[in-house]
Amino acid sequence: MLKLETMRVQMEKMVRRMQDTICEAIERLDGRCFREDVWARLEGGGGTSRLLQNGNVFEKAGVNVSVVSGTLSNEGTNVAMGSDGVSGTGNLPFFAAGLSLVLHPHNPMAPIAHANYRYFELGEKATPSSWWFGGGSDLTPAYLFDEDATHFHRVHKEVCDRHDSAFYPRFKKWCDEYFYIAHRGESRGVGGIFFDHLNDRDPESLFAFVTSCAEAFIPAYLPIVERRKDTPFTAQHKRWQQLRRGRYVEFNLIYDRGTSFGLKTGGRVESILISLPPVACWEYDYHPSTGSQEARTLEILKSPREWL
Amino acid sequence: MLKLETMRVQMEKMVRRMQDTICEAIERLDGRCFREDVWARLEGGGGTSRLLQNGNVFEKAGVNVSVVSGTLSNEGTNVAMGSDGVSGTGNLPFFAAGLSLVLHPHNPMAPIAHANYRYFELGEKATPSSWWFGGGSDLTPAYLFDEDATHFHRVHKEVCDRHDSAFYPRFKKWCDEYFYIAHRGESRGVGGIFFDHLNDRDPESLFAFVTSCAEAFIPAYLPIVERRKDTPFTAQHKRWQQLRRGRYVEFNLIYDRGTSFGLKTGGRVESILISLPPVACWEYDYHPSTGSQEARTLEILKSPREWL
Repeated sequence: MLKLETMRVQMEKMVRRMQDTICEAIERLDGRCFREDVWARLEGGGGTSRLLQNGNVFEKAGVNVSVVSGTLSNEGTNVAMGSDGVSGTGNLPFFAAGLSLVLHPHNPMAPIAHANYRYFELGEKATPSSWWFGGGSDLTPAYLFDEDATHFHRVHKEVCDRHDSAFYPRFKKWCDEYFYIAHRGESRGVGGIFFDHLNDRDPESLFAFVTSCAEAFIPAYLPIVERRKDTPFTAQHKRWQQLRRGRYVEFNLIYDRGTSFGLKTGGRVESILISLPPVACWEYDYHPSTGSQEARTLEILKSPREWL
Repeated sequence: MLKLETMRVQMEKMVRRMQDTICEAIERLDGRCFREDVWARLEGGGGTSRLLQNGNVFEKAGVNVSVVSGTLSNEGTNVAMGSDGVSGTGNLPFFAAGLSLVLHPHNPMAPIAHANYRYFELGEKATPSSWWFGGGSDLTPAYLFDEDATHFHRVHKEVCDRHDSAFYPRFKKWCDEYFYIAHRGESRGVGGIFFDHLNDRDPESLFAFVTSCAEAFIPAYLPIVERRKDTPFTAQHKRWQQLRRGRYVEFNLIYDRGTSFGLKTGGRVESILISLPPVACWEYDYHPSTGSQEARTLEILKSPREWL
């Protein structure tokens, strides 16, 4: 009889397969190749980070897999559980396997994309005290083309609907709430889907859902880059892209739980911060002129909308 | 008989005077002028932010005064007190007056400088439950000239010694510990002085000390910029400066308590983030070549030294 694979093993296989698939698709579009770093973590596990820098289409593309285990401090447990200021139980064994990617195209008309899918266990391997899936994918345009946002959301809605028709509305809203730069009163981008601590049905069903989501990334994003990558642009367009990338940095360093969790639990810094843009700008009290394309992007980021 | 001024009033006068003095000195060196924004805070108080952007010497120079009051949430109290995860008493009235400045020169051979001096009260105006002074000044070179670090430290040591010979060694160490980018295992720069929650003697003595420190900023920093501002540099030097500015962003957004306090208590975002560099870069897994000037800077940032 076949021994069933544990969820740990299934998840690791899936994220490694999707890393290959996604990197191949990006390389076909870009014409340049990823470099790979395989790293190990002292406490247990490791990962494979792939980076494409100064490509033809992508200024920076990072696609990471990590499969790590060890013991979580109080602080790490709190960050993992998404709680603040509450004392965790502390020193719990944990396991996490995930795929994480951020793509920064050169062309300011092509949006940044991010995706992350992960499986998490707390407690002993044989008898985990809790487990969950988390993840999502979202789009961050500097210049907003409605059809791009609509396409990205439609692909994700179709995937969600195949598993549960309640998923898309719930995870779309969660995404808008999560990727929010509170001090700016702006969303990071036009959203997508986001979910965390998902364990409300059997793990196999959720694994199937997360797998579908990961498979949806390329069809959701690459057609957008294909149609924007050769759009002519000016230095002013590039400038606005870099100012928006500054906001991306603000979100990732101040609010993103994955970044915070990774840095606080001694993750591999270069892999975690691979998400940061190659160049970002800040300009004091900058306001795009009324009626401009830049002002329109900002306006929509200040009040998330339904794209479907 | 003369009515004595409260510490609130004395501190506000001092920081406003020092803002003028410092801006005038910078304008004389740069040849360009600051713009000024006066802002008010709904809850109470306000500030004056001054910015010089794309000057002849400074790519970005921000010199802020803020004099604010209101009510602190639990979270705000924790941040102000420098405690993490401990429940604060919450909803305390507070008052804070401070001078805060960050200067980013164009020339990569000229270091970034930061200074901040503040007075804080918790509780009712007539009977504050606690009060303290905080502040310091530190230097962040991309290229390290020992004589610059030594000069900066010497000026600050002389000021400290005039008030208490125990101050410099204590505040120098505190500075090294505070401006530490834990996830990188690097100091932000070559330090200077830093102190917080200082209330171990009468407020007048501490006010005199903090005033001396603020007055020391120009003699500590400007001679360094004067001797570096016209150094010839290459695109590679500029690139290294921008990578180091990326680290500056990491520190300010992840670790700096002042930034966190400001953003969490609804401070004026543009004034708080005036500290961020105009341009910052990130490059995956970048290592300067062995024996280079860049490698030497990094080496010293990894093991803080005594400069005097």
